[in-house]
Amino acid sequence: MDRVAALDDPQLRAFAPLIFVAWSDDDLDAGVRERVLAQVAAEPWLRPAARAVLAAWMDPAAPPTAAELAQLHALIEHVKTTASPRDQLAVADRIGRELGIYAGTAPAPAPRAPDRALIDGLRAVLDGEHADVRDRVRAFLGDHRAYGLSADAERVKVRGWLRELAATQLPALAFPGVTSDRDLAAFTAVFEELGHGNSSLLVKLGVQVGLYGAAIWALGTARHHARLAKIAAFEELGCFAMSEVGHGSNVASLETVARYDAATRELEVHTPGESARKEWIGGAAHDARWAVVFAQLEVAGVRHGVHAVLVPIRDAASAPLPGVRTGDSGHKLGLNGVDNGRLWFERVRVPADNLLDRFATITDGTYASPIASADKRFFTMLGALIGGRVSVASASVSVARTALAIAVRYAHARRQFGQLLMDYPTHRRRLLPHVADSVVLRIACAALRKRHAAAVVGSDTRELEAEAAAMKVLCSRHAVAAVQDAREACGGQGYLSVNRIPELRADVDIFTTFEGDNTVLAQLVGKALLGAERKQLTAGGTLAVVRAVARRLAPRNPLAARRTDDVGDRDFHLATLRHREQSLVETCVLRIKKRLDAGADGDTAVLAVQEHVVAIATAFAERRALEWFAEAEAAAPAAVQPLLAQLGTLFALARLASHAAWFLESGYFEPSKLRAIRKAQDALLAELAPLSRDLAEAFAIPDACLAAPIAFFDPAHPTY
Amino acid sequence: MDRVAALDDPQLRAFAPLIFVAWSDDDLDAGVRERVLAQVAAEPWLRPAARAVLAAWMDPAAPPTAAELAQLHALIEHVKTTASPRDQLAVADRIGRELGIYAGTAPAPAPRAPDRALIDGLRAVLDGEHADVRDRVRAFLGDHRAYGLSADAERVKVRGWLRELAATQLPALAFPGVTSDRDLAAFTAVFEELGHGNSSLLVKLGVQVGLYGAAIWALGTARHHARLAKIAAFEELGCFAMSEVGHGSNVASLETVARYDAATRELEVHTPGESARKEWIGGAAHDARWAVVFAQLEVAGVRHGVHAVLVPIRDAASAPLPGVRTGDSGHKLGLNGVDNGRLWFERVRVPADNLLDRFATITDGTYASPIASADKRFFTMLGALIGGRVSVASASVSVARTALAIAVRYAHARRQFGQLLMDYPTHRRRLLPHVADSVVLRIACAALRKRHAAAVVGSDTRELEAEAAAMKVLCSRHAVAAVQDAREACGGQGYLSVNRIPELRADVDIFTTFEGDNTVLAQLVGKALLGAERKQLTAGGTLAVVRAVARRLAPRNPLAARRTDDVGDRDFHLATLRHREQSLVETCVLRIKKRLDAGADGDTAVLAVQEHVVAIATAFAERRALEWFAEAEAAAPAAVQPLLAQLGTLFALARLASHAAWFLESGYFEPSKLRAIRKAQDALLAELAPLSRDLAEAFAIPDACLAAPIAFFDPAHPTY
Repeated sequence: MDRVAALDDPQLRAFAPLIFVAWSDDDLDAGVRERVLAQVAAEPWLRPAARAVLAAWMDPAAPPTAAELAQLHALIEHVKTTASPRDQLAVADRIGRELGIYAGTAPAPAPRAPDRALIDGLRAVLDGEHADVRDRVRAFLGDHRAYGLSADAERVKVRGWLRELAATQLPALAFPGVTSDRDLAAFTAVFEELGHGNSSLLVKLGVQVGLYGAAIWALGTARHHARLAKIAAFEELGCFAMSEVGHGSNVASLETVARYDAATRELEVHTPGESARKEWIGGAAHDARWAVVFAQLEVAGVRHGVHAVLVPIRDAASAPLPGVRTGDSGHKLGLNGVDNGRLWFERVRVPADNLLDRFATITDGTYASPIASADKRFFTMLGALIGGRVSVASASVSVARTALAIAVRYAHARRQFGQLLMDYPTHRRRLLPHVADSVVLRIACAALRKRHAAAVVGSDTRELEAEAAAMKVLCSRHAVAAVQDAREACGGQGYLSVNRIPELRADVDIFTTFEGDNTVLAQLVGKALLGAERKQLTAGGTLAVVRAVARRLAPRNPLAARRTDDVGDRDFHLATLRHREQSLVETCVLRIKKRLDAGADGDTAVLAVQEHVVAIATAFAERRALEWFAEAEAAAPAAVQPLLAQLGTLFALARLASHAAWFLESGYFEPSKLRAIRKAQDALLAELAPLSRDLAEAFAIPDACLAAPIAFFDPAHPTY
Repeated sequence: MDRVAALDDPQLRAFAPLIFVAWSDDDLDAGVRERVLAQVAAEPWLRPAARAVLAAWMDPAAPPTAAELAQLHALIEHVKTTASPRDQLAVADRIGRELGIYAGTAPAPAPRAPDRALIDGLRAVLDGEHADVRDRVRAFLGDHRAYGLSADAERVKVRGWLRELAATQLPALAFPGVTSDRDLAAFTAVFEELGHGNSSLLVKLGVQVGLYGAAIWALGTARHHARLAKIAAFEELGCFAMSEVGHGSNVASLETVARYDAATRELEVHTPGESARKEWIGGAAHDARWAVVFAQLEVAGVRHGVHAVLVPIRDAASAPLPGVRTGDSGHKLGLNGVDNGRLWFERVRVPADNLLDRFATITDGTYASPIASADKRFFTMLGALIGGRVSVASASVSVARTALAIAVRYAHARRQFGQLLMDYPTHRRRLLPHVADSVVLRIACAALRKRHAAAVVGSDTRELEAEAAAMKVLCSRHAVAAVQDAREACGGQGYLSVNRIPELRADVDIFTTFEGDNTVLAQLVGKALLGAERKQLTAGGTLAVVRAVARRLAPRNPLAARRTDDVGDRDFHLATLRHREQSLVETCVLRIKKRLDAGADGDTAVLAVQEHVVAIATAFAERRALEWFAEAEAAAPAAVQPLLAQLGTLFALARLASHAAWFLESGYFEPSKLRAIRKAQDALLAELAPLSRDLAEAFAIPDACLAAPIAFFDPAHPTY
């Protein structure tokens, strides 16, 4: 049926402007459509055939094409001067106005009382399996702010809090099977929950048990494990000496050497040059007595790659041991409660037993490893340390949630130009998508932590590694963006240290860099995902390339690209994110293959498409996060599911909207789809705005830890 | 001519895959096209007609439509099993490979010596008319870093630097006609150049002469101007008491009252409640002896709106005067060298002569003003203070340039995984567009400053106000984003205070909030631009709406939307940015009108489309900035024009790419256009990468002020 021709009917022409404006604007929604049809049904003068034509134009599954809209406009121009009965035009006009097709003002949300069921329901989902340890953390969390102090004074404060934290015995959860009878997910939940508190304290804990202790736990054997109880109690303080100033994220290229001396059965640890100095090492500037040093292991003149060696670095009086030189990395943008430092080793000798020898032993002067391939051994050892990234991903989102809770609460207290901040569309747009993201990512991190806890050290963890790295990238980016928007959303108040956000902003900034720079990590993830796809294509010739390009350019189902009624469906979101990821992988492989065909070496070929590789990692992270969230959503109590549906959809639509140009360019979306997505986002923002204070409440951040005055009142109208 | 059918020729089928892949990928460029044609010309077996068909397919002005590509693919599928001579397929294949159509690896840029001509040429353009005062600032700028100190110690340091700055007599440029015989642009150039130094020092200067002094200069009369020499010499320290804690960006609603007492010919300044306390006032916590207080002027029981009154607040011993209460705003994320404070007034009396009375006088107990309308008077007084926004816009870009100079220099010194950081595409993408933006915006700010200096105080400055507000929004956003990316691009080094970036990051954050919150300013700009358009439409009925919608949906010239050879043309950039701005204005008016038609009041109607209004302001700012740049580009020495063309195009294309979804959605771009834009961006990044250290050199930031060790060497390979 030609819908445009059908409208060229004396009874229907009057409706052409209404249909034209309705479909070409952002304001049409399902409710309006139904009411249009109801009103049309009530008009006695319309013939049944004319009603059918109007119904066809209002079909949500068949929005008009751009061509139809253009034809429709031509029709209006053509008939506007002809004698359509004026009263019929008036009827159409009235319907349009009454139903908001020519209008669409949403009523302001009414203030509402806290919804305990909503708060408790969401909180239970967010707490998940670890409500007990989270409550223990909440009992510990207090007003651990430390601003306006010298770095030395800040370190002293943090040291005190660290002792209080040790007394809770929560750190002992870090070593399952040794100091804990629970799995690692209990500890990573503790770490996540501590993310609401002081970040220097968090990082000091991370260094002590999540890096130093975890290296001993994962890479050491029974004789090393004997230390773990003292480590968990903070009686033996250690540091994790991996990064070198010349090799920030390039661990395989570390230059520090651990040479085996068969005569004395010792390892000689040595810093061969300035670029090999250990740098940024948390605890190295002052607190640590021990270090797990990552170094190139050399046995009988043969290098076996990077291994970890336990090295004492300070004596009981905190003085550096002979051969060890220490330094302070200096003042930083944030995290000044952490004593990041430098280490140089001048032929420092330790017993060979200090080699963390789970994956490599030296027996009778002979190096042996259960893993034959040096590459595989290296990745197995690093794989055993995935926990750092899992923990940073989780804690990032906690930092974001803290800042968002403060900003959301302020937005419900503060008025400007007569309105609550939360009533402003720009304010909702600035904060609420981050709130949704922080819920979705918290739930996704819980799934990641569960997989991490279930993984067997030494097994093939490549998939988990990609997931952990991708989530670290996604969550730390989220945190920086969310805290920044929270800062700006609180105006000058957000710049005052008393309101906590400045501390969160300064501290979280480095989360995008430490535990692996985000760009480097994204490349690792992207390359891993490219691996399988690449094999398929390297066999084919030109026609294989053509086929792959054709698949990318293949016309989509035009209806699917245009329909507007599926933008709230989780299946649509997942299918769309999967499509994007898969397309990015395929086109990237093509681009690499073309370069290889032309004689480029692998590194050059991949470097040329580096941005593409990074985009793959983000696409993977977004898809994986939403999948994990969708699983949790389906398993959640029925009462919470509608709220989770809103939050998950806001997360998903933000992703689709941010890639809108890509989807439009490839024809996967038509403009009507994008308009429907924007409209659905606006509707969700309006729905969630009045609930948002309750959402922040469900984050269950203790008041003493929230701390910021603006989280409790508008300073212009203080309630103290 | 049906190009697809023409290809279905035994001689040409072999080229179909080559054409298909070439046009469907991002790698085709003009050079490759020409080489394809040259190679084709060299093949003896092709008929002239076949050559013509191939030439038509390679026409840069006529890229294939999506439909043509789909037909082309169908043709390939159709013929691939037929007996096209294998040797012809091999020829096409060889051409494709040799010319990089199936490849496209760009050679790595060779290291190069500094290009003095380029450096000096760009520097001359950037310095513009004010090279002399800039050089005086450069002679003053030194290592003014102040990190790791208590706020008190930092304030002491900044006070010392401020005295040194006063000794240069540069601050006297702030008051043309009184303490300076040059125009205001000389002073705003000084302020801009000082933006490379310590931001607390900059803000203290801004408060003293740019706000306190400028208010007296612009709003006062001769008897007040007598103070300006002492103010410029920092002998009389003042503050600018406008913001109140309840009214951050809403100046018209200030609550502080200045009541005229006819009996004593005094003004009684009073803080009626806590929300009226003056807050964030630079200098109020400690240094300022005087304040220009903005208050509701009341004469004989009648309120005349916000006026400015000179009020002494501290005695010679720095103690608050009777009735004045002061407080400290407290520790902040940055700018802790500025003593932001609070002021409360308890019926403080000053002589009526202290009213800054250029636009309002009280004579014999009667209020009089040359400006009858209270609204117009208010905006005239605020208009006289545009300089603050002009200065913040300019200095924002200086902060960005400093961070970028450090990051760019580090990227040319530091290697990771064997390559210079600047050789990584992600690194170029992260830094170089900001570098281009910072050049374009510096030049745009120079034009804004010139217009500002030429404006007559008291005249209709609405256009200038919109420009200043829009540029403040654009430039402060640029600064925050650029410094953040510079921080991340330097990894852990960017987090160390010694490398300056942390200080820049923390200080610049508030530039998006002070001198008018960016969101509030963007709304003011957007509303101003909507004004004229709105009048046109409010007259028409439904058909007027239809016409406006149709204009928006009107099919573009399909060739213009698809052509790929104009993406480097400044006219194309300007026309496209103008189109976007105009479209946004028109559609916004439509959306507002629909709401008004439906009975919404004006505020509600505008609030509902708030994000749209904000988008208009950004579109306006981008268009205006590029226009100003294009004027300067055309007037620049011929030797610098090619470089300016590259930088301006990178700026313009970044804008178009960031709005890609909007252009695709509206049909203004077809996918081929977007691909051409991306390709041109990639080419510019590759061209500018090797030049980028020279660009940073042209910023002419003194080494002592650049200060960061990483700006001079890679700390892994120190050269000290």
